[in-house]
Amino acid sequence: MLVLGVDPGSLVTGYGLVKKEGGTLGYVAGGKISFPHPWPFHQRIHRIFSSLVEIIETYHPEEMSIEDIFFAKNVKSALKIGHVRGAALVAAVQCGVKVFEYTPLQIKQSVVGYGRATKEQVRAMVKLLLKLDTQFSLDTSDALAVAICHHNWVRFEDTLAV
Amino acid sequence: MLVLGVDPGSLVTGYGLVKKEGGTLGYVAGGKISFPHPWPFHQRIHRIFSSLVEIIETYHPEEMSIEDIFFAKNVKSALKIGHVRGAALVAAVQCGVKVFEYTPLQIKQSVVGYGRATKEQVRAMVKLLLKLDTQFSLDTSDALAVAICHHNWVRFEDTLAV
Repeated sequence: MLVLGVDPGSLVTGYGLVKKEGGTLGYVAGGKISFPHPWPFHQRIHRIFSSLVEIIETYHPEEMSIEDIFFAKNVKSALKIGHVRGAALVAAVQCGVKVFEYTPLQIKQSVVGYGRATKEQVRAMVKLLLKLDTQFSLDTSDALAVAICHHNWVRFEDTLAV
Repeated sequence: MLVLGVDPGSLVTGYGLVKKEGGTLGYVAGGKISFPHPWPFHQRIHRIFSSLVEIIETYHPEEMSIEDIFFAKNVKSALKIGHVRGAALVAAVQCGVKVFEYTPLQIKQSVVGYGRATKEQVRAMVKLLLKLDTQFSLDTSDALAVAICHHNWVRFEDTLAV
């Protein structure tokens, strides 16, 4: 199964594709969606949608895993991040990709085993789990972590179902 | 010129199409986008996008006018309304419709002449300006008001440009 992980951000949105074959996780692709800074906000929001549609049409993931957000620094930040998540959810549903949401705590616990892990600790663990020695931006490794979290969660559900 | 006004809401999103011909405003269509309550949030967000795309493809408005939001009751409300606005902005850009944003204060001042007008006062004024005697939901009249505000604003800009 191929999972698209998304780490939504109003300045940079990370994405990461992780497959699982025979119980082994593997890196497929990853990167970040960003824009020239003076772009109008509505153009940036559309770019997140159109980039995710392009990624989905290129790699054909079955499921999308996205960070759920309940807290924000303030109302202004919450509004911005809401727009980004909205664009990502529209892209997934539009392409017929199932959506799964995980809190930052669930993602960190699932990948690092510790809910208060730093972004650097998450990146180190992502590299270890996917056997990668290239360098990633923290946005990309966060997105890969969301995808890994979903793979682990599904495995856990499989175990429970036995 | 035909303008699509949008009043974004996470439970109900109003829309209203207002044309201007020879300096006269005219009602074209209006209504609200809502959903069965137990629908998952991501399906509701996508429904707002797909409904707006359908409305744009049916009526071909040149411009979309949408309520801008800077305040919300709390972070949770801001996140929700952000998703809705994100879906609406993606629909407009995807269909090549120009986006214009107005604050609630600008809309009320433009339509009623008083920035703290109630929704009922806005509806009464919308009915008067569009010469309508049918009853509207407050979501629909708010959306028509956003479209009227944009028509008035464009007129004001035309005047300035002379």
